[in-house]
Amino acid sequence: MAEISLHDPYPASEVTAWDHETDVAIIGFGATGACAAIEAADAGAKVMLFERNSGSGGASGLSGGEIYIGGNGGTDAQRAAGFEDSTEDFIAYLKAAGGPCVDEAKCEHYGREALNHYTWLKAQGVPYRGNYLPGKHIEPTDDSTLIWSGSEAAAPFCNIAKPAPRGHVIQHMGWGGGRPLVDVLEASARSKGVEIIPDARALALIRDSDRIVGVVVRIDGQNRFVKARRGVVLATGGFVMNEAMRRKYCPETFRINDPIGDKDDGSGIELGVGAGGDAIHMEQFFTTCPWTMPESHAYGVFVNAQGQRFINEDCYHGRVSRCAVDQPGGKVYLLLDVAHFVQPMDFARIDIAGTGDSWEEVEAELGLPAYTLSTTMAVYNAHAKEGRDPLFDKKPPILTPLDQGPFVALELNFQTSYFSFFTLGGLRTSAHAEVLDRSGKPIPGLFAAGRCTSGLPAWGHGYSSGLSLADCTFFGRQAGLGAARG
Amino acid sequence: MAEISLHDPYPASEVTAWDHETDVAIIGFGATGACAAIEAADAGAKVMLFERNSGSGGASGLSGGEIYIGGNGGTDAQRAAGFEDSTEDFIAYLKAAGGPCVDEAKCEHYGREALNHYTWLKAQGVPYRGNYLPGKHIEPTDDSTLIWSGSEAAAPFCNIAKPAPRGHVIQHMGWGGGRPLVDVLEASARSKGVEIIPDARALALIRDSDRIVGVVVRIDGQNRFVKARRGVVLATGGFVMNEAMRRKYCPETFRINDPIGDKDDGSGIELGVGAGGDAIHMEQFFTTCPWTMPESHAYGVFVNAQGQRFINEDCYHGRVSRCAVDQPGGKVYLLLDVAHFVQPMDFARIDIAGTGDSWEEVEAELGLPAYTLSTTMAVYNAHAKEGRDPLFDKKPPILTPLDQGPFVALELNFQTSYFSFFTLGGLRTSAHAEVLDRSGKPIPGLFAAGRCTSGLPAWGHGYSSGLSLADCTFFGRQAGLGAARG
Repeated sequence: MAEISLHDPYPASEVTAWDHETDVAIIGFGATGACAAIEAADAGAKVMLFERNSGSGGASGLSGGEIYIGGNGGTDAQRAAGFEDSTEDFIAYLKAAGGPCVDEAKCEHYGREALNHYTWLKAQGVPYRGNYLPGKHIEPTDDSTLIWSGSEAAAPFCNIAKPAPRGHVIQHMGWGGGRPLVDVLEASARSKGVEIIPDARALALIRDSDRIVGVVVRIDGQNRFVKARRGVVLATGGFVMNEAMRRKYCPETFRINDPIGDKDDGSGIELGVGAGGDAIHMEQFFTTCPWTMPESHAYGVFVNAQGQRFINEDCYHGRVSRCAVDQPGGKVYLLLDVAHFVQPMDFARIDIAGTGDSWEEVEAELGLPAYTLSTTMAVYNAHAKEGRDPLFDKKPPILTPLDQGPFVALELNFQTSYFSFFTLGGLRTSAHAEVLDRSGKPIPGLFAAGRCTSGLPAWGHGYSSGLSLADCTFFGRQAGLGAARG
Repeated sequence: MAEISLHDPYPASEVTAWDHETDVAIIGFGATGACAAIEAADAGAKVMLFERNSGSGGASGLSGGEIYIGGNGGTDAQRAAGFEDSTEDFIAYLKAAGGPCVDEAKCEHYGREALNHYTWLKAQGVPYRGNYLPGKHIEPTDDSTLIWSGSEAAAPFCNIAKPAPRGHVIQHMGWGGGRPLVDVLEASARSKGVEIIPDARALALIRDSDRIVGVVVRIDGQNRFVKARRGVVLATGGFVMNEAMRRKYCPETFRINDPIGDKDDGSGIELGVGAGGDAIHMEQFFTTCPWTMPESHAYGVFVNAQGQRFINEDCYHGRVSRCAVDQPGGKVYLLLDVAHFVQPMDFARIDIAGTGDSWEEVEAELGLPAYTLSTTMAVYNAHAKEGRDPLFDKKPPILTPLDQGPFVALELNFQTSYFSFFTLGGLRTSAHAEVLDRSGKPIPGLFAAGRCTSGLPAWGHGYSSGLSLADCTFFGRQAGLGAARG
């Protein structure tokens, strides 16, 4: 008898009896799985959705519920706030955000369809207040809809695409919009007759010749054989909670300590690769440390342990954080003047490392050699007074002289501060969410989306909030549709 | 009939007739394949070696023929030059060189066995003059044996392991010792009765149940089915010549333009993954720009396009180059005084970007903002006079003030200067060169070594010359031995 394994599809010829039969089997009940289920059901398929937890959520449920949307002249919220957003600019930004890992076909597909996707989300019942909240926010603390959630207005992105805010957040008071977002999607899926089986862990795919035709699922301590007449959708999330996989594919994440995920153990990636799929860009990860809270800290200047700047600090907080984690020495400093300093949030575990009435005093207190940090700040301030940053092209008003002491240096320590992270690498899929084999051909019957794939948020240094949920929800839909079509 | 594919082993049950039968089939005739063949033949196996080119060589034949060897108190050459080299220090360096990608078991295995390996190489006929050539050399320009070939004496490595030179070069006048090294290994393999079949390209592995039992090889326009009773060894090199694979797994290499390789198209990685293997650390690559030629340039200081230092320049030239390629802006500058400047080698394509009687003048000529490069150099020089480098811990004598003009800034441009590179990621193998499946278990009958695996040179930032050939030759031997044992 064949072994039941994540790493090798089970032969259909050895299935003696099917415990369940459906058109489309979906594995994972975060936003990806929910959107796949809705779309497959709308296409007329019988859909079964298997989730290893006792309810929906996944990593999507832990998120801010923010979806990156733009193009086609802008959403209602963008236009009401005075932002036109051309499809060309939107796609150009998506591609720049993908950096060296970009999947151009996905950027183009989503770029053209994002406004329709927004309409679709609303049709599922996702509420949007429709208003714009200016400023720099990780998530809105009220129930606003639209925020700046990336590096759109910062160099080099602002030179590549006309900036617009594109972070569209479910109407929800305060942080944590991901949970209500999944709730809405779950309700929609249920209303369409999707059969949801919780406490059901996928153990193996089932293959008949070259086609994936089902899945083995562990339910109530029993292996259940599920026939999927039209297709299987992997929607299982990334591998941030799997230390062995991180060691093999993404070891830089061991510099930091706060994985964000639910049961994101990479099982969908294993299932897909075992079926002949291709895991790509596995070293990529998102990270952020909440250094822009309070918002006044966004006016600070970052230096590394050599007293050098390394980024234009008006970029998205996650891009700045990701570049910080590249720096040698295990920590970076956020430099602030008294006008901008506020005690950081406790949960950030960001401590004061030095203070002084001059930058020379701060430099000495940090134990940095003379003329390092102090010269960095003298050069920065001289240019900031002229409204320019010739080193990194930071823009006003975030670019402002920090020359009136007293001053403070906050330490963002990679090991002790709160650097949350999740993985971005995964299965290579087409722009229609087909899992591709190593030669680039779709594997019949197998679809995937979200963080078990490499998608829109392909490159850690280019991440923007909402890119992952855009990817999950939009390509989740493509996966459901593809599977329903068989 | 099953398809013949790199991506999926061909079923033995469909082989109607075997064209060749052997105990061990080896694919690839660089140093790895040659060493595997010798060891398998010595273990009593009938060995056939298939090479797609018309002769031996592979990327090994393009190399300097330098092998990283130490430990156990030191080789004859190390001891004659006054360097003791404990196994503990040697292993500690190997592990540090592997960085976040380290395979500790391989470091320990090789670390204990390297001196025996040196003896074995000599027994095959590899000549070593036995002398030590001090200084900083990419390869000896004479026929010397022992050179510093890594970052042993530089921080942080010198704080982790007692430094010793460990680059052991075949006795050969001038650069290019790789070709004669492979010649010696080829002669040894032939003398042991290894059957060598050139112009033979591997198309697919052959599997019987869970075991690899042979290989399909294209010879004279025909598919030939080769039965390997005991094992198959993959020794096909990396994927630097395969742009599609680089795009998927190692896109940062598109910042630079000079791949070093022969037909390194990743076919062995594809064969291994298709058989259930696991490709790891695929984003890692070695690069170097020959900036230490002439040797006086080793005394220079590197700054990035922001005028900042980024590395202790006394590290191995490849480590400095790899860190250079991480810098924003597409180029870095090597700063020299007139006492150390010599016209760079033509092939390096390193041009003069600016000159001046003071660092302020150089700064202005490069178009850098005032007080950036000039302050960097003022701080550097002030500390160099005290014999210290508090920023990066560069050591004397390479650490020396550059304060007597005129000065020159050489531009190392990622797109136009000569940055050679090759890939380091590949199959995950055990310390005995067994190809491991995704759950970590050996795939019966399948072995691999060299650059189609992730081995001793696992991390681009820690590469040292000789690590790759150490890995190829030593783990090539393990692969041959393992295959011969069946």
